[in-house]
Amino acid sequence: MTLEVSLHVIKSNIKGSGRMLKKFLLGFGLMAMLFPTLAFAEDATPAQLETAINSVWVMLAAILVIFMQAGFALLEAGSTRMKNAGHVAGKTILTFGICAIAFWAVGFGFAFGDGNSFFGTTGFFVSGLEDQAAAAYGSLSGSTVPIGIKFLFQLAFAGVSLAIAFGGFAERAKLPVYFIFAVLFTVVIYPIVAHWVWGGGWLAELGMQDFAGSTVVHLQGATAALVATILLKPRIGKYNKDKTSNLIPGHNQVLSVLGVIILWIGWFGFNAGSTLSAMGEGFFGYIAMTTNMATAAGAVAALLISWMYFGKADIPSMLNGVLAALVAITASCAFVEVWAAIVIGAVAGIITFFTAQWFDKAGVDDPVFAFSVHGIAGVWGTLATGLFATPELAEKVGVGGAGLFYGGGFHQLGIQALGVVGAFAFVLVLSFIVLSLIKLVVGLRVTEEEEIIGLDLSEHGTYGYPEQMKKAGQSASV
Amino acid sequence: MTLEVSLHVIKSNIKGSGRMLKKFLLGFGLMAMLFPTLAFAEDATPAQLETAINSVWVMLAAILVIFMQAGFALLEAGSTRMKNAGHVAGKTILTFGICAIAFWAVGFGFAFGDGNSFFGTTGFFVSGLEDQAAAAYGSLSGSTVPIGIKFLFQLAFAGVSLAIAFGGFAERAKLPVYFIFAVLFTVVIYPIVAHWVWGGGWLAELGMQDFAGSTVVHLQGATAALVATILLKPRIGKYNKDKTSNLIPGHNQVLSVLGVIILWIGWFGFNAGSTLSAMGEGFFGYIAMTTNMATAAGAVAALLISWMYFGKADIPSMLNGVLAALVAITASCAFVEVWAAIVIGAVAGIITFFTAQWFDKAGVDDPVFAFSVHGIAGVWGTLATGLFATPELAEKVGVGGAGLFYGGGFHQLGIQALGVVGAFAFVLVLSFIVLSLIKLVVGLRVTEEEEIIGLDLSEHGTYGYPEQMKKAGQSASV
Amino acid sequence: MTLEVSLHVIKSNIKGSGRMLKKFLLGFGLMAMLFPTLAFAEDATPAQLETAINSVWVMLAAILVIFMQAGFALLEAGSTRMKNAGHVAGKTILTFGICAIAFWAVGFGFAFGDGNSFFGTTGFFVSGLEDQAAAAYGSLSGSTVPIGIKFLFQLAFAGVSLAIAFGGFAERAKLPVYFIFAVLFTVVIYPIVAHWVWGGGWLAELGMQDFAGSTVVHLQGATAALVATILLKPRIGKYNKDKTSNLIPGHNQVLSVLGVIILWIGWFGFNAGSTLSAMGEGFFGYIAMTTNMATAAGAVAALLISWMYFGKADIPSMLNGVLAALVAITASCAFVEVWAAIVIGAVAGIITFFTAQWFDKAGVDDPVFAFSVHGIAGVWGTLATGLFATPELAEKVGVGGAGLFYGGGFHQLGIQALGVVGAFAFVLVLSFIVLSLIKLVVGLRVTEEEEIIGLDLSEHGTYGYPEQMKKAGQSASV
Repeated sequence: MTLEVSLHVIKSNIKGSGRMLKKFLLGFGLMAMLFPTLAFAEDATPAQLETAINSVWVMLAAILVIFMQAGFALLEAGSTRMKNAGHVAGKTILTFGICAIAFWAVGFGFAFGDGNSFFGTTGFFVSGLEDQAAAAYGSLSGSTVPIGIKFLFQLAFAGVSLAIAFGGFAERAKLPVYFIFAVLFTVVIYPIVAHWVWGGGWLAELGMQDFAGSTVVHLQGATAALVATILLKPRIGKYNKDKTSNLIPGHNQVLSVLGVIILWIGWFGFNAGSTLSAMGEGFFGYIAMTTNMATAAGAVAALLISWMYFGKADIPSMLNGVLAALVAITASCAFVEVWAAIVIGAVAGIITFFTAQWFDKAGVDDPVFAFSVHGIAGVWGTLATGLFATPELAEKVGVGGAGLFYGGGFHQLGIQALGVVGAFAFVLVLSFIVLSLIKLVVGLRVTEEEEIIGLDLSEHGTYGYPEQMKKAGQSASV
Repeated sequence: MTLEVSLHVIKSNIKGSGRMLKKFLLGFGLMAMLFPTLAFAEDATPAQLETAINSVWVMLAAILVIFMQAGFALLEAGSTRMKNAGHVAGKTILTFGICAIAFWAVGFGFAFGDGNSFFGTTGFFVSGLEDQAAAAYGSLSGSTVPIGIKFLFQLAFAGVSLAIAFGGFAERAKLPVYFIFAVLFTVVIYPIVAHWVWGGGWLAELGMQDFAGSTVVHLQGATAALVATILLKPRIGKYNKDKTSNLIPGHNQVLSVLGVIILWIGWFGFNAGSTLSAMGEGFFGYIAMTTNMATAAGAVAALLISWMYFGKADIPSMLNGVLAALVAITASCAFVEVWAAIVIGAVAGIITFFTAQWFDKAGVDDPVFAFSVHGIAGVWGTLATGLFATPELAEKVGVGGAGLFYGGGFHQLGIQALGVVGAFAFVLVLSFIVLSLIKLVVGLRVTEEEEIIGLDLSEHGTYGYPEQMKKAGQSASV
Repeated sequence: MTLEVSLHVIKSNIKGSGRMLKKFLLGFGLMAMLFPTLAFAEDATPAQLETAINSVWVMLAAILVIFMQAGFALLEAGSTRMKNAGHVAGKTILTFGICAIAFWAVGFGFAFGDGNSFFGTTGFFVSGLEDQAAAAYGSLSGSTVPIGIKFLFQLAFAGVSLAIAFGGFAERAKLPVYFIFAVLFTVVIYPIVAHWVWGGGWLAELGMQDFAGSTVVHLQGATAALVATILLKPRIGKYNKDKTSNLIPGHNQVLSVLGVIILWIGWFGFNAGSTLSAMGEGFFGYIAMTTNMATAAGAVAALLISWMYFGKADIPSMLNGVLAALVAITASCAFVEVWAAIVIGAVAGIITFFTAQWFDKAGVDDPVFAFSVHGIAGVWGTLATGLFATPELAEKVGVGGAGLFYGGGFHQLGIQALGVVGAFAFVLVLSFIVLSLIKLVVGLRVTEEEEIIGLDLSEHGTYGYPEQMKKAGQSASV
């Protein structure tokens, strides 16, 4: 059978067997000769198709994580008082806006630019956008997703960490503080720790397992929140003279619930999107599944523990349990089996409940329990990876080794603990310095009178709910 | 022209014609010999690319359907009273959490595991995750999407059915009832009917057309809601002594509207995602389009009919019309033409309006009209498929045949009717048994005093809206 | 080396080199002869895979843009008064439903059907759905995404333009007006201008750069809003006898903030989805990035300018700044560098602030500032493209040339200005005619008494917030 004959066979099969054959024949340079009237569209290569698929997946993930700003706005507004609601919701958009500019200019380069073990020294102003493939971000080169999408995805993470931090400022910090701290956190705090773990820094070299940022995103934000809530001191009316604490309930549980569901679905982008790839036989789906199962367990466990402890099934406690489980599974989602994810989530829900009680009693007024939910659960999640990581999954991800319960001894657990301590200490010190300086220069807290009338009026000049506040006998604006 | 010559031609064309050729040549084993210095990156195969695309699409669909929990939380909270709002919203998260654990452990295996014509007997605890391709779920093997994502997608459906069921419990059921019923519905009710239709059971063998679950998801949930609302009896104040009914308006139409829009977009995942594939020249897009057009028609038809009937364009009626249309097009979305989708949606909006009035007058206090919206429209949608299914689309989907109006006679319609009757009878009996047992053991309904103060206080100890309720002269907590 | 020998080599390599080879051999028709026992699954071609990827991306984008209806419902409800909240939110669903039917029947054909330079004359009732590839929409043929998805995407855009228009009707138009205007805008206004720019019309021929519709969608909707707000006259209580204006604050900033975040993420679909493709090395990601950076700049700039001007950092002004930046970057997102996007967004936030003040003082009561936010910023964004478009990006997109600041002279800027003037004049005249006719036949505005009790009661018979309004001493229904 000659090649020419076989080409005639092709001709009759060409509709059924598709464009690949045409391509092949073009490669031989025979096509134009034999079928001069046929014009073939240029087909995409497998590499181009793979880039496109991964780009769609990571873009979807980035959108979901940016949407988490709505989750935080609703959860924080719902968990605080009506007189501060407009302020709380509005400042979320403001600080994400500031974060975006600062992260574009400086933060992204510090975090993911090539540099040393402590910070990146290239890639400021997100260089390399024109030449997507060859940008100066070695730590992100494992994925072919273009830099524009990688930037949005990483910006969304920085924005989440910052939103967590601001939980500790709620109901009493001055508006200018949000401006200054947003810039400094985005420029000199968050990207440094991100570089350590994800940008090729010293914790990456040690093999720390923090898949989507229990430590990088959550513990960091929570540590800054803890420093803020301590420096700002408790809200007026929170503690009595005998040091017993009063409940200051949030004004709208429906908004809080909506916020938490938005965060739940946002976390599918957060964790499963951190693959930066849709290939690998659906590994991102496995991660979405561990994430979901941990969260379900956290919801149920936290509600039950509050029921046993308070005698009432407390909804805010359940919402904290959902978030704590999400935070805890963030480090481990790609490293653990499903049953372990359920254990990690349930334990997170329970320890967060008790630590929230403990901080409240200890005189730390953390209005939305930012440190318990994102800090304690962040520590637990990071350590839990060192307990439950399976050798197969660690190999698949390509980071670190098996956890204590899977024959890895204390090696991985030790690295995890070192990462937790390092990140906590760094953020504690830096946040303390930054906030102390802000306190010195512009002050941190509004006046007593301003706090009593509420930040909607004091910082923005109008209530967030003017009609409802007016009905309560207050004037609608100052 | 020799093969060797042609390979030299290839060499000069290699940049333009892409990596496919390289692959081809690697297959010949000649590459290393002829071009020893060239290194080729391992390219993804078409099968791997297809799996990745389908996985991204079904993951997106799963996220949209899970987000529907927010839709139900908002719609149900907005459609009930302020004193129950925190409870209604919060229990949505709780019951989805319970459902996730129960469906993972048992329900998914019963529904989609290989087994007999009535239920699956393999795949409990979602086995086969490590070896994505070879899992024990024959009924899902038509799609190459990995099991983790298929599980999340199917879990989201079970969660929707459960959320519908709980509509019938609103404003008077005790919290423990939600725990127990959530487990039993997820384990012994929902997966059985799902197996019948989607898991290779007896209705699948007959060729029942229920593309995304008008019967499997909606009629099932609604039937449980009907049993619950009858067993629980009407809310205090709903009916007068002369059996006339009072309107108990929902407290927040804005939240209801937001909930309905979330459900609308969630349904693109629900219906179009049920292809479990993004291939097929965009067939999922066609399904999204029929879904959208039916819904638009349902919205307009229901608003107009309420305007004619009440003299006022009633917004809750319109919202019910939107949902009824979505429910009705769920079975038929892949089987019918666009004009038929519009008819199905409009009719759903109208019959749901009148049946809601009828049930209200008949003394059935279904607070969010769960049975009219999801049950009656579910029946209509399932039967409508037997009327409007085109032979081309039935063949494309590969399930059943043409409907009555397209020359299929009464055959398909009969199967649809049989499916409706079978599912309704099964769920009616099982729900009655389950709820009667719960009633016997722990009781179904809160006390009269608890119902009057509201479930936020009675079941959870604090109002969902503490400041607003306090202004109305009520204490913020018990 | 004979072909037969090489086929034996293939046989031994067949597992490693993947399915492409099998396909190739099937093409030769030799497979059955040589390996009669092997059955090969049919692999997808690169073209099919590309279609699937693009379809998933554009479907996601369509869902995001349809979700923007929730954004508008929340923003508009939050920015108006409690007595109108149910009406404002509910009518959003109603008008999107009407728009969907009208756009399916007529609008889509006028806009994208093949025709002349002014409107399309084919494709009514979205013909060609069965044969996805060969539909009668030449202007959309650059993308292989199937018509069903293209229709949904374009419908979502028409729905956004209509929602913007209705901003000008807020708090005083009669419900029937919404019905009639929704049909006429969708049928005879929006699709004409869309055809000019995107459907192969005269502005397309001139090379106007309006990537996602600063003019087509936003300026159009805003111009209709301006005509409406002028014809409807100011709300009762807005202006004093001395022509000074009173602030009528919106009732719920938390809902407004949520609405704006939904719009922000929806815009990733709006702008980046307008590529109608996920290929091109992630160009859609670059567009998402310029969109995001402009928006961040708009938020910060608008808050700062309000702070300087009012002495208070005004949240509604910031929200307007976010939207104005989004509107402005809509035309230019694909044509400009990131730094230019930041400038465009910041300038949009500032000019929208001042023009909103100016219209308010000039006696134009535009309740949600629709013309300032979508009109002025739409003009600015369209002109800005003529200033900042780079030659490389203009070539990449394939529309128009470089802007004034990149060596293009006034040519492109002139075309942009012509497009703005043409669209503005056309919509101004058409809207004026349409609304004047409606005014003549059914009237535009509710009675004074109806406006005072609110549109929830007057148009729908119940409050959107019955319990809260009742507490304020008003009866819950009429």
